[in-house]
Amino acid sequence: MNLLDELATVLEARKHESPESSYVASLYQGGTNRILQKIGEESAELIIAGKDHSATIELQNNPARDEVVKETADLWFHCMVLLAHQGLSHNDVLAELSTRFGISGHDEKASRST
Amino acid sequence: MNLLDELATVLEARKHESPESSYVASLYQGGTNRILQKIGEESAELIIAGKDHSATIELQNNPARDEVVKETADLWFHCMVLLAHQGLSHNDVLAELSTRFGISGHDEKASRST
Amino acid sequence: MNLLDELATVLEARKHESPESSYVASLYQGGTNRILQKIGEESAELIIAGKDHSATIELQNNPARDEVVKETADLWFHCMVLLAHQGLSHNDVLAELSTRFGISGHDEKASRST
Amino acid sequence: MNLLDELATVLEARKHESPESSYVASLYQGGTNRILQKIGEESAELIIAGKDHSATIELQNNPARDEVVKETADLWFHCMVLLAHQGLSHNDVLAELSTRFGISGHDEKASRST
Repeated sequence: MNLLDELATVLEARKHESPESSYVASLYQGGTNRILQKIGEESAELIIAGKDHSATIELQNNPARDEVVKETADLWFHCMVLLAHQGLSHNDVLAELSTRFGISGHDEKASRST
Repeated sequence: MNLLDELATVLEARKHESPESSYVASLYQGGTNRILQKIGEESAELIIAGKDHSATIELQNNPARDEVVKETADLWFHCMVLLAHQGLSHNDVLAELSTRFGISGHDEKASRST
Repeated sequence: MNLLDELATVLEARKHESPESSYVASLYQGGTNRILQKIGEESAELIIAGKDHSATIELQNNPARDEVVKETADLWFHCMVLLAHQGLSHNDVLAELSTRFGISGHDEKASRST
Repeated sequence: MNLLDELATVLEARKHESPESSYVASLYQGGTNRILQKIGEESAELIIAGKDHSATIELQNNPARDEVVKETADLWFHCMVLLAHQGLSHNDVLAELSTRFGISGHDEKASRST
C-alpha cells in the first residue's frame, strides 16, 4: 500500500469521528464549501511560497524550499479530503494523469500487485 | 516505480525539449510565474467543479464527478511541474504528509524496495 | 456619475451584444462558471504581481508597480461582470463596505446628488 | 469624496495604529504575504458564493445574493489594503479601468471637482 492509499484509508476512518476531536471530521462537517475554501487558501499559500522560493532559490538550507513542500502537502491533503468527502478516489486522479500524459502505468500496476 | 515517480521522470526529461513541441517545456520557459498562474487557474476550476459535483452528487454517470477528477489531476500535474522546475520532489511532499498525519510509511518503503 | 457607475452602464449594454464582437458578452455567454474562472485567474495574477512588486518596491519607474494596478483592475472588472451577470450592483458592495468599516457615506451621497 | 476615497483615508490612518487594536494594522504588520493570503481566501469564497447564488438565483430574499455582495466587499477591501500597503491608490486602478474600457471619465472628474 503506498502513501496516498494509506492516507485515503485514514481519511475514510475519520468519517466516524467527532468534529471536536478530529480536524478532518470538522472539515467533513463543514461540507463541500468548507473543504473548497481550504483548497483556495492553500493554493494561494503555495503561490506565495513558490514566489518566495523563486526569489531565494540559490540559498543553502533555504526555509522557502521547505515552505513549498509544506504548502504543496497542505494542498494535496485538502484535495484528498475533497475526494473522500465526495466519494472519489486519488486512484481515479492518478489514472487520469496516466492517460493524459502517456504514462503506461505498467510498473504501477506491477508494484501494486505485490 | 509508481505513477508519480514515473510522471516526475517524464517532467525531468521535458527540460531538454523545446517550448514549441512540449507544453511542459513551455511552462518551464514561462518560469515560476507562469507555473503558479496555472496552479491558481486550476484550483479555481477545481472549486467550481467541486460545487457542480456537490449540487448533483446523487446522479448516476455524473459528468461533474469526472470533472472533479480531471481538475484535481490538472492541479496536481501543475504542482508536479512546479516541484520539477524548482528542484524539488513529490517524495518530499509525500514524506511531509506522512510525518504530519502519522502515517508510518512502512508499507510505502517496503513496496518501493521491490 | 462616477467611474464604477459608468462601467456598470457599459456592462449592462453589453448584454445586448454578440459574444463574437464583445469580450464581455462572451463572458456572459460562458455563464457564471466562466466568469468565476476569470476571477480565480485574476486573483492568482494579482498575488504574483503583489509579490513581484514587494520584492522590488524601492525601484523608480517600477514595472511591477504598474502590474499590481493592472491586475487589480482586471480583478475588479471581472467582479463587476459577475455582479452584472447576477443582477447585483457595485453600489450594494460599496454600501456593505460603508456599513462594515464605519464610513458615513454622507459625502458620498452628497456628491451623488449633484 | 466618494466611498473608496474615504475608505483609503481610513486605511492610511490605520498605519499609525497598533496591530492589537486594529485588524487593518495587523494586516500591515503581517506584510504583503499576509495581505495576499487574504486576497486568495476571499476570492475563493467569492467563487463559492457565486456558485451558491447561481444555483438559487430565482429565489426571493436569497441569502446567497447577500453572500456574493459580502464576499465581493471582502475581496475589494483586502485589495484596498494591498494598495495602501504598497503605496498605490484605487484611483490608479479606476484610471486603468477607464482607459481600458473606453470610459471617458469626464463625469467622474466633474463630480470630483465639486
